Amino acid sequence: MSLTVVGSVAFDALETPFGKRDKILGGAATHFSLAASFFTQVNAVGVVGGDFGDDQWAVFKRHNVNTDDIEVIPDGKTFFWSGRYDYDMNTAHTLDTQLNVFETFDPRLSENSKKAKLLFLANIQPTLQKQVREQCPEAKFVAMDTMNFWITSTKDALFETIKVVDCMIINDAEARQLTDEPNIHKAAKKLIDHGLQALVIKRGEYGATLFTKDGYFATPAYPLESVFDPTGAGDTFAGGFMGYLASQSEITDETLRRAMVYGSVMASFNVERFGTLRVDALDYPEINERFKAFKQMTHFDEIPFERATTAS
Amino acid sequence: MSLTVVGSVAFDALETPFGKRDKILGGAATHFSLAASFFTQVNAVGVVGGDFGDDQWAVFKRHNVNTDDIEVIPDGKTFFWSGRYDYDMNTAHTLDTQLNVFETFDPRLSENSKKAKLLFLANIQPTLQKQVREQCPEAKFVAMDTMNFWITSTKDALFETIKVVDCMIINDAEARQLTDEPNIHKAAKKLIDHGLQALVIKRGEYGATLFTKDGYFATPAYPLESVFDPTGAGDTFAGGFMGYLASQSEITDETLRRAMVYGSVMASFNVERFGTLRVDALDYPEINERFKAFKQMTHFDEIPFERATTAS
Repeated sequence: MSLTVVGSVAFDALETPFGKRDKILGGAATHFSLAASFFTQVNAVGVVGGDFGDDQWAVFKRHNVNTDDIEVIPDGKTFFWSGRYDYDMNTAHTLDTQLNVFETFDPRLSENSKKAKLLFLANIQPTLQKQVREQCPEAKFVAMDTMNFWITSTKDALFETIKVVDCMIINDAEARQLTDEPNIHKAAKKLIDHGLQALVIKRGEYGATLFTKDGYFATPAYPLESVFDPTGAGDTFAGGFMGYLASQSEITDETLRRAMVYGSVMASFNVERFGTLRVDALDYPEINERFKAFKQMTHFDEIPFERATTAS
Repeated sequence: MSLTVVGSVAFDALETPFGKRDKILGGAATHFSLAASFFTQVNAVGVVGGDFGDDQWAVFKRHNVNTDDIEVIPDGKTFFWSGRYDYDMNTAHTLDTQLNVFETFDPRLSENSKKAKLLFLANIQPTLQKQVREQCPEAKFVAMDTMNFWITSTKDALFETIKVVDCMIINDAEARQLTDEPNIHKAAKKLIDHGLQALVIKRGEYGATLFTKDGYFATPAYPLESVFDPTGAGDTFAGGFMGYLASQSEITDETLRRAMVYGSVMASFNVERFGTLRVDALDYPEINERFKAFKQMTHFDEIPFERATTAS
């Protein structure tokens, strides 16, 4: 099934305990597209400035991502984000945000992008997300992300958008803030009650959980001794998740579970090097090997306890 | 295999968003014993005062816990802890601690307790833990807990004790503090390098992870919409974990994994009501049903991704 993503394409400047980069390829749609490209053909919808160069386009091309709908505004500058991570690597401290051409982003989807069966609305203004969703009547599984800024400033519009999607892929704090509910399972129930088919809660180093109307699935994160750069991990997760679903003939509880694991696999690679470097260089044996590792690290035999087995 | 636990037996006073109790049965050895009692026969070693009454003894008796080594000091008062939990339920705020008879606790093990094949050293002074361990030469699997207080005040003694045990069952923060290492996987490796066969990291609502020299296993926590009272959850986990191991004929990677799940099962029940009430009232079908639920919520089919399966 075809997959379209709408979101930011950006330059990032990063400082982590492991080093510093002044200007590397980033953005939600970028990280998403690269991860998803291993599973399906992706249409990326975004906007960049005249400073977006051949090296950046080459990354998309290498992964067969359709960039026809990434608008170029030659006189403008590409969205720029600068951030710093401390040793705990859990929180990004924003140093600078220059929206540039992204400030007036008006996603225009070609017929090809509109025909996608799966659609991911990365973190942009909720009303824009809704407009994009309405341009894709054939989409049968639509997922969205959001962030604390929209929850605070446009909560009503956000809930209007939630009504027209099938899935949210957000983090713990966002789920709690959206529902004013400290218990994550109660928060998830409230969100599911808004009509979602699935809700994915990303929990960073603790893994990710999938809530459906009647089901629950949890996967740990891959155990990494060094998290090099967490930027884009959430979008990479979403890319692996949606990309895998797009590769399957139908979306069932079983495919959603494997999609959770493939999302976790892709995110675990993403954080191993700066920006897009690690995912850009991935191959299928690596992906499948890590998928297997997830099975290995969560498997146990289902043997009920029987009192009679108690030895003396 | 027989199992001995050494630790506190206490009265707790608790305030949670769900209610208040002035004086209920608590303590690490209590929570541990009750949980373990579903899997094996437990010898509890501790000390109480003259205020420890028939109702409290009855709880141990109901679960066939051997209390011969719980010393009674008729003129003394039982260890008392008072705490409060806010809505997030993750952090206990200590309101009052009265060590009472526990202040001069000098664990004396009967021949029966000394002969145990499995031993759990609950959170007490590290030098005492070591002395107890040395009284049990036949113990083939010894696990210990500790807390931030001992890590700060008696770190050297603590590492002497770590040398003579096989397993630690501690939380994230304790593992980080013990090793001065923010990354939990690096912290775990450092602790394993001190000669542990197994290290269990308890992560509260995020579940628990097992590290061995070459292996890694992660289990989520059971999804609970209401955590009523988290007091004793860690000791209840340890009781389920050690109790299950004691019920098995040998300790292997497979039994350790199932022990992690049984530990999580028991902890999930413990937090559903105040103090020991829920575990006290448990039965085997409930335990096995929840064990099955853990399998259900973590299972996925191991199907590697094949590019060829991509649909158009």
